[in-house]
Amino acid sequence: MSPATAHVTFFPEGKSVEVAVGTHLSRAAALAGAFIDSPCGGRGACGKCRVQANGALSELTAAERNKLTMEDLDEGWRLACQATVIGDTKVKVPFGSLQIVLSGIQQQGKLAPGIRKVFLKLPEPTVEDQRADVERLRAALGAGARVSLDAARDLGHVLRAADFAVTAVLAGDECFAVEPGDTRTALYGIAFDIGTTTVVGVMLDLNTGEQVAVASALNGQAAHGADVISRINFAMSGPENLAELQRAVWETINGVIAQILRQSGVLRERIYELVAVGNTTMSHLLLGINPASLALAPYVPVNGEARVERADRLSAAINPRGPVYALPNIACFVGSDTVGVIMATRVHDGDRVRLAIDIGTNGEIVLGSRRRLLACSTAAGPAFEGAEITFGMRATDGAIEKVWIEDDVKVQTISKGRPRGICGSGLIDAVAEMLRLGLLDQSGRLIAQDDACQALPRALCDRLVQTERGYAFVLATVGKQQVYLTQQDVRKLQLAKGAISAGIAILMKELGVGYDDIAEVLLAGAFGSYVNPASSRAIGLVPAFPLSRLISVGNAASVGARLALLSTEARGEAEEIAARVEHVELSSRPDFQDIFVESMFFPPPAVRLG
Amino acid sequence: MSPATAHVTFFPEGKSVEVAVGTHLSRAAALAGAFIDSPCGGRGACGKCRVQANGALSELTAAERNKLTMEDLDEGWRLACQATVIGDTKVKVPFGSLQIVLSGIQQQGKLAPGIRKVFLKLPEPTVEDQRADVERLRAALGAGARVSLDAARDLGHVLRAADFAVTAVLAGDECFAVEPGDTRTALYGIAFDIGTTTVVGVMLDLNTGEQVAVASALNGQAAHGADVISRINFAMSGPENLAELQRAVWETINGVIAQILRQSGVLRERIYELVAVGNTTMSHLLLGINPASLALAPYVPVNGEARVERADRLSAAINPRGPVYALPNIACFVGSDTVGVIMATRVHDGDRVRLAIDIGTNGEIVLGSRRRLLACSTAAGPAFEGAEITFGMRATDGAIEKVWIEDDVKVQTISKGRPRGICGSGLIDAVAEMLRLGLLDQSGRLIAQDDACQALPRALCDRLVQTERGYAFVLATVGKQQVYLTQQDVRKLQLAKGAISAGIAILMKELGVGYDDIAEVLLAGAFGSYVNPASSRAIGLVPAFPLSRLISVGNAASVGARLALLSTEARGEAEEIAARVEHVELSSRPDFQDIFVESMFFPPPAVRLG
Repeated sequence: MSPATAHVTFFPEGKSVEVAVGTHLSRAAALAGAFIDSPCGGRGACGKCRVQANGALSELTAAERNKLTMEDLDEGWRLACQATVIGDTKVKVPFGSLQIVLSGIQQQGKLAPGIRKVFLKLPEPTVEDQRADVERLRAALGAGARVSLDAARDLGHVLRAADFAVTAVLAGDECFAVEPGDTRTALYGIAFDIGTTTVVGVMLDLNTGEQVAVASALNGQAAHGADVISRINFAMSGPENLAELQRAVWETINGVIAQILRQSGVLRERIYELVAVGNTTMSHLLLGINPASLALAPYVPVNGEARVERADRLSAAINPRGPVYALPNIACFVGSDTVGVIMATRVHDGDRVRLAIDIGTNGEIVLGSRRRLLACSTAAGPAFEGAEITFGMRATDGAIEKVWIEDDVKVQTISKGRPRGICGSGLIDAVAEMLRLGLLDQSGRLIAQDDACQALPRALCDRLVQTERGYAFVLATVGKQQVYLTQQDVRKLQLAKGAISAGIAILMKELGVGYDDIAEVLLAGAFGSYVNPASSRAIGLVPAFPLSRLISVGNAASVGARLALLSTEARGEAEEIAARVEHVELSSRPDFQDIFVESMFFPPPAVRLG
Repeated sequence: MSPATAHVTFFPEGKSVEVAVGTHLSRAAALAGAFIDSPCGGRGACGKCRVQANGALSELTAAERNKLTMEDLDEGWRLACQATVIGDTKVKVPFGSLQIVLSGIQQQGKLAPGIRKVFLKLPEPTVEDQRADVERLRAALGAGARVSLDAARDLGHVLRAADFAVTAVLAGDECFAVEPGDTRTALYGIAFDIGTTTVVGVMLDLNTGEQVAVASALNGQAAHGADVISRINFAMSGPENLAELQRAVWETINGVIAQILRQSGVLRERIYELVAVGNTTMSHLLLGINPASLALAPYVPVNGEARVERADRLSAAINPRGPVYALPNIACFVGSDTVGVIMATRVHDGDRVRLAIDIGTNGEIVLGSRRRLLACSTAAGPAFEGAEITFGMRATDGAIEKVWIEDDVKVQTISKGRPRGICGSGLIDAVAEMLRLGLLDQSGRLIAQDDACQALPRALCDRLVQTERGYAFVLATVGKQQVYLTQQDVRKLQLAKGAISAGIAILMKELGVGYDDIAEVLLAGAFGSYVNPASSRAIGLVPAFPLSRLISVGNAASVGARLALLSTEARGEAEEIAARVEHVELSSRPDFQDIFVESMFFPPPAVRLG
């Protein structure tokens, strides 16, 4: 018998998902592609994941009673990380709940998108005023305005069909479209985060800055390799392959746009701009630039700078004349997604030294302040996304997302489904708990079953078994089906976390700071939203800070893209950031191997316990 | 028996034509599409049509003995308007013989084309210098330089294939192509004069300003009407018609480019820019802008300003990334060709008031000086190009091009062919001579045969006959075939010349100048090169000036396009001219009809005889 389910619909997107009863609203939102920030990691501590819900939900938790006022409760506010689904529910994700930085733009009156509309009632031509249509329009738009050839081609007809009352659409000083009548209220753009694995698009109303719709899809390039190196190798093995990779990512993007159009009912022609962030390889492939040099010493990008190109020249399925703005990259493996993280977290602008870690298919690390800012990338590998791990899987239904070990192992799966495998947050939880109980030692070796039976409860001892994949620890058993973690899996995790913590160590060394000098550690990416900060610290993925200094910032790269969509000033800032960040090439440092090997060890118990 | 012929080959174009023995070199050059200016109208008076000839030509004329030194003669110099062909001849058209204004650019060191090439040996990347390829190139190009996405796409491969020694091709500050090695010597552009009837392209070497090749073709739009009004009507009768007209003109242009490539052996990719002038309708159709509003009161263009567009976006068959620069238009029927005439003649820059007349399918008139400049267009109609006249034809083999009347009529045909019809210059000559002898009166009425027989030689009286097209004067008879001018033909000419001289009169009135205030009358266009200034004056097409003030300037519009190709400063000047010229709309003036009717009369004998 399958578990009871319920439908949860998220607004303003209007996107609906079916989830198991008992699923947290925050998880349902993630499945629906509705992004809700949870800076405290879903512990109910920050109160940032407030949503307005109408339907059948669990009783209020203590955390909710603590964070919500009586008035809030009357209005139906809940914390998405606390409330679980009992029956069909409608949820309104308030603007600003996740978009603290974005709302800052509005509050400070900085909403200044690259695209703007101007409604004009032009004087009609007479024998005394025989100015050309283009000149007439330019005069009305004011000094410096230009009219593109496309707009000029429409102009004669549109002016006369609309009695000279038209809306000019401008990118900067260039009017690239004229629309009959007053269309000012219809002004949209989409911010894209182009991940190696996942492509996420968020449509914003450029008049208000509000999020109108969001959608995501798996990057269609995945057929040609899971990581950037295999994509680059594919691109290098034939000119038609580069074209194929470019086609694949645009097909994915256009699929996301199609979802957004369906959700929102907005006309394609009214989406006037697309802004994109991504790692450097994705940025190259998006623009059709061969990324070969990224994979060959001395590792240089072909293009680092921001690019603006017409949508139709990149086959972006928005208004064909609208611009596509691709944010600048920092270095070979530190892309515009990292620029987005910096923009969203404002690490570049603070007096205090802060550390930001964005773990996706690669791991990028940023350390510094307004005085000096360093960045590096680490070949974290896709272990945290579930790849390379025996029972690894993406964070979808049935993935073990949380693990506790007391007398026996307890797991929580996404949507409370039958355990099918383990995702990144579950993996880190499992290893942290196994370390705590001594199932793993500091070197990462799984305890021998004999030793375990002497020191640990029987239930745990029984979970240590020989499998066809070698010695392993069983996390869950459903019928004859087991989900376990092998010695080899632990080694993979050690390599991944070792690369990241070595990167952090080298940036700290380069900047000349110790742990006490770092005010905050910001965890970005989908990873950052769902991983348990305490577990991350326990395995030594992040330094041994008090938990109060570990902050989840969600998909900060996407927030950076949204900032660039809403503010040309933010674009200028992005370009300054890209130029200013000092890239530290780990592979060329003689000290890297040493620190890397050392970092593969797990922290001693004293550190783990904080 | 057909007359003896000879081949004349013109260099540097290398284009060959077969002409009748006795043909002037200047006419052979025109047939070959090799433009030779003849400011004095082919009278041997100015010496500007100097060419170096090697072959069988006529004896030196008195004019040549007067204009050429012994040294010139030793080097083979002849005057193209004097020397006639006896046998096969090779002719070198020197740079500067026709291009007085163009050579001025070189002499004054003003050669500054929009396209330039820079050869660079870039430092190769190292682990210490991991700048992106684009950044590396930009740094070498200097402050302000940008690299287009197309160039960026090539850059990674080209740099590494050429050991980082490359030639950057720039339009302004934008590098739009990178070529391996040093290609600086291969840098070409083509200047086009897009006529309603004829399209002429001249390829220039942008390193030296020299003319490399020239070619022409009939405008393929002619299938949809001979004049601009019928083209506009066709464009208005369906959106696919606009596309067809744009396609047709680009097919014509690309055919001319193909001829130029064959003549010169230059690679298509090495032609980096195309500059075009044309009347306002041609400018609209070239850019794919619907010209409907040009034909409807209150007569306004859609686009007046200069336009730059990528070649591939206009299907121009040059380097697909190179720019197409279309010069600005002044008004509805005063186009960028008139801007070109002003640039070439520098009417806008002189202290003295000058009058420039460009007669093609329409007639545009410019009057003024550096203080104030007026322009108008007249519906001259294509009478001067042979249309609408019973035996009218274009200036090709067999066209009567010159007419003298003494005791009887003598005609000269192009290439000395059997008379088949009459072209513009022959028509003006014929009417001027008929006026002189009283065959036509001041009102344009053909003398009655009875009256003629009393006053004129018998041979002339016999030429006045009734034909199936009405009463007419026979110019030539070959067997049973006659070429004659009907009363109706004379009326057509009166309408055409009346429109032009009325335009001149109105501009003079508007500027407040009399005949004595006008220092020079400049006759531009193919018409201007071949018409006899005295005959023009005799029929009242141009004012009654001393012949010394009537100057043929040849295809000045094309020279304007060439100036814009060679000098960005000249483009700035073109844009200033277009903004500055005051357009006088003849149709809206209450005094136009009066002056037009008056202008249809021929001048009294005293004026005709100068």
